[in-house]
Amino acid sequence: MDKVQWFKILTPEIKEMISNRDLRELRNFLVKPHPADIASLLRELDPDERVLVFRLLGKDTAVDVFALLEPDEQEELLKYFTERRVKELLMEMDPDDRTQLLDELPAEMVERFLRLLPPEDREEANLLLNYPPNSAGRLMTTEYVGLRLDMSVSEALQRIRETGPDRETIYTCYVVNSTGHLHGVTTLKDIILAPAEKKIDEITNEMPFSLKTSDDQEVAAKIIQKYDLLAAPVVDSQGILVGIITVDDVLDVVQEEATEDFHKMAAIQTPDENYFRGDFFTLLGKRVIWLVVLIFAATLSGKVLKSYSLLLSSVITLTYFIPMLTGTGGNIGSQSSTLVIRALATGEISMKQWLAVLRREVLMGVTLGCILGVVAFMVEMILLQDVLIGVTVGAALAVIAIVGNTVGTVTPMLFKLLKLDPAFVSSPLIATIVDVTSLIIYFSIAGIILSL
Amino acid sequence: MDKVQWFKILTPEIKEMISNRDLRELRNFLVKPHPADIASLLRELDPDERVLVFRLLGKDTAVDVFALLEPDEQEELLKYFTERRVKELLMEMDPDDRTQLLDELPAEMVERFLRLLPPEDREEANLLLNYPPNSAGRLMTTEYVGLRLDMSVSEALQRIRETGPDRETIYTCYVVNSTGHLHGVTTLKDIILAPAEKKIDEITNEMPFSLKTSDDQEVAAKIIQKYDLLAAPVVDSQGILVGIITVDDVLDVVQEEATEDFHKMAAIQTPDENYFRGDFFTLLGKRVIWLVVLIFAATLSGKVLKSYSLLLSSVITLTYFIPMLTGTGGNIGSQSSTLVIRALATGEISMKQWLAVLRREVLMGVTLGCILGVVAFMVEMILLQDVLIGVTVGAALAVIAIVGNTVGTVTPMLFKLLKLDPAFVSSPLIATIVDVTSLIIYFSIAGIILSL
Repeated sequence: MDKVQWFKILTPEIKEMISNRDLRELRNFLVKPHPADIASLLRELDPDERVLVFRLLGKDTAVDVFALLEPDEQEELLKYFTERRVKELLMEMDPDDRTQLLDELPAEMVERFLRLLPPEDREEANLLLNYPPNSAGRLMTTEYVGLRLDMSVSEALQRIRETGPDRETIYTCYVVNSTGHLHGVTTLKDIILAPAEKKIDEITNEMPFSLKTSDDQEVAAKIIQKYDLLAAPVVDSQGILVGIITVDDVLDVVQEEATEDFHKMAAIQTPDENYFRGDFFTLLGKRVIWLVVLIFAATLSGKVLKSYSLLLSSVITLTYFIPMLTGTGGNIGSQSSTLVIRALATGEISMKQWLAVLRREVLMGVTLGCILGVVAFMVEMILLQDVLIGVTVGAALAVIAIVGNTVGTVTPMLFKLLKLDPAFVSSPLIATIVDVTSLIIYFSIAGIILSL
Repeated sequence: MDKVQWFKILTPEIKEMISNRDLRELRNFLVKPHPADIASLLRELDPDERVLVFRLLGKDTAVDVFALLEPDEQEELLKYFTERRVKELLMEMDPDDRTQLLDELPAEMVERFLRLLPPEDREEANLLLNYPPNSAGRLMTTEYVGLRLDMSVSEALQRIRETGPDRETIYTCYVVNSTGHLHGVTTLKDIILAPAEKKIDEITNEMPFSLKTSDDQEVAAKIIQKYDLLAAPVVDSQGILVGIITVDDVLDVVQEEATEDFHKMAAIQTPDENYFRGDFFTLLGKRVIWLVVLIFAATLSGKVLKSYSLLLSSVITLTYFIPMLTGTGGNIGSQSSTLVIRALATGEISMKQWLAVLRREVLMGVTLGCILGVVAFMVEMILLQDVLIGVTVGAALAVIAIVGNTVGTVTPMLFKLLKLDPAFVSSPLIATIVDVTSLIIYFSIAGIILSL
């Protein structure tokens, strides 16, 4: 059984307890598992069962489990709850999780829920909701431990003991001066290991970077990754500390951004939903747009074939190799574009290195072309035993490999240069571009060789 | 300027200091930046400059910077160092980073370096090197804080203060019983917030999972992500605690695994190197294998075309639509395969749900087929104004969409079922399968409609 999904094996047992109305037993049963396992378990149940099980959870567990659900699952559950319960849950949630939930809810629900919150929580929620989507401001929580420069280590520990219980992390502490400007950062490790009378000032490190509320969440992720941080501070335009982003949220961002790139590269217009929760027609729309665009682009291939129809009808055997040649060209292009797109995304290559990348990939295209040209010649000889057509097919594939590899390399870099996301250079897009050029190369070479 | 790569702007200044031999100034200059920035900076320099700058670093900074370099960069630097310096660096490195380095070095270098280490470090390095590649055992560090069940909170704090300085994290502490078996986990937060005389037993939580040294690193990553952990304990086959895996290593694993999947899905035989550091011919080999396999597979398309050569030569206009039909079929297949592969990788869908996935994707294929069939008919009417061929092309694309979408859905699930990695179902593989079926569909429909 899968270690990560192990809890699902208990589903039938729980369903039985529900149908037998063994609610007391079920309640006791639910005390033990980790909230993350209860959340996975809830996903396995029908809506009615889900509400029932959720109601049986202890108050603290309920809050933890609720925070681990996706916003649309939370919305679903909230519909069944009394105002008092909703208020309780919303107040206990971390501000960053609450923002994520409110962000997904319909406007009238948001207004109703915001009215349930006490004024200071409402103000905070409004503030966080005002940052742009996918920004550091949206991702951050306002529940950090702030220390003052002139505190002693023992005063700092005292403050951590007082405020710690509701803070998302107490391991990284942020040191501000008297005006609230971020001065630097210290860790609970340094505090614990320092003598009680030492000043916080002496164990504070300057930040090597500053994250603004308006920065993209991807920048926040890269910074946390680069400096191996547990949390990164976020400041407003005046440099005042307003919140922190923790590493667990960044893990989700890295995962999401990779999924987004996977989808873009398969020519799907960025679905941002979980596989099953995404709406069928929304996803249909996101897939069909690119497909239709590419069909229209592919008519160019039709036009090329039409213009060579005389050659084609006199040597019909030339058509046999069209799928292999265009296919291989597209495959080579999608290999090189994937290598370049991913290396750009992870920062392994930067645009400054474009010449080195291009040189490497042209050389790679030439080498691939030589090898594959020979292979294609052999394949033709097996299939038709016609030397002239064999040479045509081999030479064409050699040229196609060079062109395909270069197109796959240049197109994502061009997108990056135009400040578009290189991940939009999908394999289908490259394949369509390479198809047309492959046909022109093939028939030009065929015209020369066969008329000799 | 890019926030993550900002430090690169200082490169020219540093290069100037080196060429002017302002070494004292350079040494002072290097005191301030974060080790991660110095590591990025070193990458911008020539090898000679790199060694020079590294020698100017303070001892602690040098160790931190060294740990942040990639194994091959470390190897490069080590060549220039005296045995004393190498020994110093190796001994100060965290055991998990040291394993990663030793893992990449040639065998004779590993032996030489291991001899430099004191016996206990050598034994530990040998132990870690014996775990399989990409396993939890390889990724873990042995430097964790272990507490005993019967300690009081103040004794635990005392122990943390004593052992803390060399531990990779002190925020999660592992509680073992008298035989060294892992009993549970507690956090520095709980310890700090508890009264001094409380027993550790009372603030220890059981682990909801157990990671073994032989588990894949991906399982470790998923568990840390699921339970929002800063570190996860790893036990041996007897349940004895042997090490921990920290969240910063997991962030790198998530990133690497995504890159690996990107490459597999573009039919590149898993290059595990950074873009530029990968050897040209190794990468060539990894790319050419799949391309050759797919060329041979594509000869099937040639055979299909050959068997329909009579139909083709009598209606040559049918060839015009071959690239569009096979291309669109491939695009649809790579959309659905990407959706399924990624959802399987992130755990959004499990194999138990195969029927629901298949149902959804067949429905999607039918809908896409209806829409795209009409589009294809219109495209033909623009290009040729031949109603019969228009109907042929439209009907063919409708069927191709359904088949392509289904092939893209079923193939990765089949791979998963056969315990192969679904990410090997690359867009090129799908495209090649769909090409052959598309041609058969197209000519069968053409044969029926045009002979009417």
